[in-house]
Amino acid sequence: MIVILKDNPDKEQLDGLMKWLKEQNIDVHPTVGSRQTILGLIGDTSSLDMDLIASLDIVEDVKRVQEPYKNANRKFHPDDTVVKVGDVTIGGGNLTLIAGPCSVESEEQIVGIAKAVKASGATVLRGGAFKPRTSPYSFQGMQIDGIRLLLKAKEATGLPICTEIMDASQLPLFEDIDILQVGARNMQNFSLLKALGKTRKPILLKRGMAASYQDLLMSAEYILAGGNPNVILCERGIRTFETYTRNTLDLACIPSLKTLTHLPVIIDPSHATGKSALVPSMARAAVAAGADGLIIEVHNDPPHAKCDGAQSLTPAVFDRLAKNLFQIKEVVDDDRKPVVIK
Amino acid sequence: MIVILKDNPDKEQLDGLMKWLKEQNIDVHPTVGSRQTILGLIGDTSSLDMDLIASLDIVEDVKRVQEPYKNANRKFHPDDTVVKVGDVTIGGGNLTLIAGPCSVESEEQIVGIAKAVKASGATVLRGGAFKPRTSPYSFQGMQIDGIRLLLKAKEATGLPICTEIMDASQLPLFEDIDILQVGARNMQNFSLLKALGKTRKPILLKRGMAASYQDLLMSAEYILAGGNPNVILCERGIRTFETYTRNTLDLACIPSLKTLTHLPVIIDPSHATGKSALVPSMARAAVAAGADGLIIEVHNDPPHAKCDGAQSLTPAVFDRLAKNLFQIKEVVDDDRKPVVIK
Amino acid sequence: MIVILKDNPDKEQLDGLMKWLKEQNIDVHPTVGSRQTILGLIGDTSSLDMDLIASLDIVEDVKRVQEPYKNANRKFHPDDTVVKVGDVTIGGGNLTLIAGPCSVESEEQIVGIAKAVKASGATVLRGGAFKPRTSPYSFQGMQIDGIRLLLKAKEATGLPICTEIMDASQLPLFEDIDILQVGARNMQNFSLLKALGKTRKPILLKRGMAASYQDLLMSAEYILAGGNPNVILCERGIRTFETYTRNTLDLACIPSLKTLTHLPVIIDPSHATGKSALVPSMARAAVAAGADGLIIEVHNDPPHAKCDGAQSLTPAVFDRLAKNLFQIKEVVDDDRKPVVIK
Amino acid sequence: MIVILKDNPDKEQLDGLMKWLKEQNIDVHPTVGSRQTILGLIGDTSSLDMDLIASLDIVEDVKRVQEPYKNANRKFHPDDTVVKVGDVTIGGGNLTLIAGPCSVESEEQIVGIAKAVKASGATVLRGGAFKPRTSPYSFQGMQIDGIRLLLKAKEATGLPICTEIMDASQLPLFEDIDILQVGARNMQNFSLLKALGKTRKPILLKRGMAASYQDLLMSAEYILAGGNPNVILCERGIRTFETYTRNTLDLACIPSLKTLTHLPVIIDPSHATGKSALVPSMARAAVAAGADGLIIEVHNDPPHAKCDGAQSLTPAVFDRLAKNLFQIKEVVDDDRKPVVIK
Repeated sequence: MIVILKDNPDKEQLDGLMKWLKEQNIDVHPTVGSRQTILGLIGDTSSLDMDLIASLDIVEDVKRVQEPYKNANRKFHPDDTVVKVGDVTIGGGNLTLIAGPCSVESEEQIVGIAKAVKASGATVLRGGAFKPRTSPYSFQGMQIDGIRLLLKAKEATGLPICTEIMDASQLPLFEDIDILQVGARNMQNFSLLKALGKTRKPILLKRGMAASYQDLLMSAEYILAGGNPNVILCERGIRTFETYTRNTLDLACIPSLKTLTHLPVIIDPSHATGKSALVPSMARAAVAAGADGLIIEVHNDPPHAKCDGAQSLTPAVFDRLAKNLFQIKEVVDDDRKPVVIK
Repeated sequence: MIVILKDNPDKEQLDGLMKWLKEQNIDVHPTVGSRQTILGLIGDTSSLDMDLIASLDIVEDVKRVQEPYKNANRKFHPDDTVVKVGDVTIGGGNLTLIAGPCSVESEEQIVGIAKAVKASGATVLRGGAFKPRTSPYSFQGMQIDGIRLLLKAKEATGLPICTEIMDASQLPLFEDIDILQVGARNMQNFSLLKALGKTRKPILLKRGMAASYQDLLMSAEYILAGGNPNVILCERGIRTFETYTRNTLDLACIPSLKTLTHLPVIIDPSHATGKSALVPSMARAAVAAGADGLIIEVHNDPPHAKCDGAQSLTPAVFDRLAKNLFQIKEVVDDDRKPVVIK
Repeated sequence: MIVILKDNPDKEQLDGLMKWLKEQNIDVHPTVGSRQTILGLIGDTSSLDMDLIASLDIVEDVKRVQEPYKNANRKFHPDDTVVKVGDVTIGGGNLTLIAGPCSVESEEQIVGIAKAVKASGATVLRGGAFKPRTSPYSFQGMQIDGIRLLLKAKEATGLPICTEIMDASQLPLFEDIDILQVGARNMQNFSLLKALGKTRKPILLKRGMAASYQDLLMSAEYILAGGNPNVILCERGIRTFETYTRNTLDLACIPSLKTLTHLPVIIDPSHATGKSALVPSMARAAVAAGADGLIIEVHNDPPHAKCDGAQSLTPAVFDRLAKNLFQIKEVVDDDRKPVVIK
Repeated sequence: MIVILKDNPDKEQLDGLMKWLKEQNIDVHPTVGSRQTILGLIGDTSSLDMDLIASLDIVEDVKRVQEPYKNANRKFHPDDTVVKVGDVTIGGGNLTLIAGPCSVESEEQIVGIAKAVKASGATVLRGGAFKPRTSPYSFQGMQIDGIRLLLKAKEATGLPICTEIMDASQLPLFEDIDILQVGARNMQNFSLLKALGKTRKPILLKRGMAASYQDLLMSAEYILAGGNPNVILCERGIRTFETYTRNTLDLACIPSLKTLTHLPVIIDPSHATGKSALVPSMARAAVAAGADGLIIEVHNDPPHAKCDGAQSLTPAVFDRLAKNLFQIKEVVDDDRKPVVIK
């Protein structure tokens, strides 16, 4: 951490700061310039409160040098995390396709789609049971019945299930669910994150609409710090001024997050764009950029889906797309790994 | 709601849509142009799923004409909502000052600040007991002990208490708390909003960092639709590309929200700017723009506050500022109401 | 265009509006609801001033149904525009690689890089002569000498040249330049756009950092309306709250713009990310998403480049990347075109 | 400037960097930690290229400690700049009201409005002659005739004139214009800024829609570095995800910019909100926040104004508002200056 002092700092306050930092086991290395003095703080600064230091009269600015996350940090964990879900492994060079409808609507629907997406190469089934909807008047999901139907689809196909949990109190209902999704709106629901940190369930953590990479990694850190290493990051679009797409899909997060962290990164092109016609292009782009997987909405009858129909593909389109995604991955893999940027 | 059809829409699909709309008790008025046909939908469209209609093959775009919120809508509730908290009334022409430290730290601290801010004109005490922190390694608040100390400060001063609730499961602990704050990161924690809708507690609902006015009002609608009319809206800055301030304070939300809704609007200049030196200017601006109140961080010893010290004022600065705020309000009130824009 | 009236509109003002609209050759189709009256405007509304209508006392809101651009509109020009630059064709199914250094620095440098990128498959040479720099104290480019050196590189390799023009007064200097680039900061420099509309030069128009797709297309419309059909659109990242990357590359613009317009779309992953380590992934993603080309910074000695060294690739890395990009294109092309989304 | 090195940096490259820095007259102070080495650079770093250093293999990150602008920097010019325009002084504790129509339309209109706003307390007349319009099909202003009519209004009222210049080639036409406005879309038209730096005209420099405070100050620096000290900064809203208002007015820029620079700061509530009903609140807020002035659109007949009618006030509303603004200023001034934040 770097502390930039104001000109002519008050001697007494400066001594106070130096003393306090030493009590925190931080070594201080000052650099004295003609106009400015800079303190280099050496030691474990992750628990130092930047805002506190910044608020001192003698301090002009504080800049963090080390990332404030440890468990999620690639520097301390150079090897890729691979999350195992039954026979499925997410991360470590695999391309995992998670597919299924926005909402579970009936046994026939969810089992039918599960069979279709499995045949196309998906290895995890998604489907919403508890639905976070912006409007209290919109369909809120089949809830417990939805969970039951998802488990029937698992029984019928063997596909592990990924579905969203909205509150820590729902945990008992999710006992047989394989991957618990934390939605973008709950990315900083710290009560929920702490509760999930106490489980060992794989967690699909979606990036909030205004969350930076660091924010996302700090939310992952909550789960990891609780003892649960099975975190999968998911980009689903951020909010910008562009309104043609529902959100702006930030695909540069893939190589960026892979530099910063060892956790798998998957992409949700369906929610990011909100338009099914844009999903295939964005899915291809995500694979080409090195994503560990995709989570895609597939519906057998998009125009009548109870929610988010506009962003769902038919099984036929998904089938064709999936084949192409694996081809792209092969071409990219051939080249990607050995490239060393000089 | 307006449905814009593609050129030469498929007759069968169009008939299907018309029939389905009639089943939903919606009257359809088509406007046929040379290149485009537009359907005007008349009736209660608040429960129609825009995304569903938009996903139809024959539809190019759908635009909402009516706001999707009813209980929060000024059109259906022309009179200002006034929220009563003991003797304090929020909204309806009052300027309510809510002040106190970011975090409760000790009995001496919270009682001392409570007395100071009361003497300066604050009528509600704020103070964090459960703290949503970005980092799992940061101080998470005194929690239950913090609640106890807040109630001691209430006993000592008579000031009602406003503090943040992070999860529906905490509700029993907040029985004696007067105003329950929902933080920006929980604005779309729908499980929490539904639980709060079942109480009759005043709720201070903070706008999320990427939430539009409509999103904020839809979250208020969750609480209102549950039967709790006591919702206070709070702007605390949105996230933009500017990094000099922690967030960008959107003061145009005051006249905008007052047009769209009847709920009180208060402003949090402390979290919005993240810098105490900017708080007085933004507090004055908020009052001049017609805010119903302010929530301001005040700390007797900002450099040693356990969190967010950088954005806290001392009691002495707050005292002087408060006087000025009431003067500004007087000058603005003299003029504001009778202005009719032609 | 849709005009939404307020409740109980003043009769006289409404008659005035209806009369005025008829004078503009607009047919008006009213839809009268219980709470709201909507006017559907039929005719050429592209020259109607939305803001003017919105400012009327009786009007609540105005929504545009037709896009305000004609020449750039895919609806009126269904076939892809193909821009010819000597033997090179941009658009229409080709993948054009435009490569070269951020700034021209010397004859040796620019000719050397030109030969290298040509050997790797680039068909256009880029290089900055006039450099728009945020700081007046930064290197502003070799200017006229830079243009001369670019033309030497063209002579030596046969590659057409793409370089940035900053002001209409520079046009005579660019007589022998093949593609004139308009930088993101000049996207709405309407004086420059009008001047370029009078030429027939291919124009590479970069999207501004806060420009929507519609803004970009309206700027293209300025050039097209002037009579110059040779416009190439270029996405180079938009400004968001994320600071790890210099900008946020919005790859969904590729399928989106290709729906809205017939103009070619190319991607600049170098400026978008600002980090050379991210460029290969984003280049691959752009090709997978269907981009018509890429503009990539290549420098023989990135750490000593006079500007933007951080975002340049070495010729060796570019060479390897280029091969992979053409492979990805082949795999994507095999699949992309015949996919029909139902 | 702070350079953060990667772990175990290559010795030879590090020596090369140290040597190069010394050649630039920069002293280097290293701070060696267990995991990280930091170099503190002391000297005039304003011309060092951060991106160049950041691109070195051995460098993890570079952070600027000193602002990259000098002439605009409050640190080097502690006293407020006061810009004189005839008898009018902008900055230094005055509240300057600049008012007038969006576009000049006729002699009767501009002279009439000039007289009205002068009577209400405005001391500068604004009015658009050259209009930057998003659409090539929209009214582009009366151009040279507009300039002539503005000068007639000046003759009739004595009010100095503020109007927008779009291109350096227009300078001769603006000889008798008092304040040259640079629009938000031209804030980084560096050719124009350089040309304006060679004049001694007062320049009203509008913040771009995606420009940070630093970007705005760097654009001001272009003019100042050219020798023209008469720069007035103007905030007119930035682009965010909120669409209810045309832009998001960032009033925290007032105290922020006044900390960073000595230049006057004025606010444009008309363009920022795009809705006349919001202008009075935002004007009051701007004055309460300490703005040096306001630029407000006033039109005698808003519904028929040729552009931006939606954001114009009538003279009667402006008259009433202006009185209130001076009252607010008085109340704020009484308090503002002597407040010392501790």
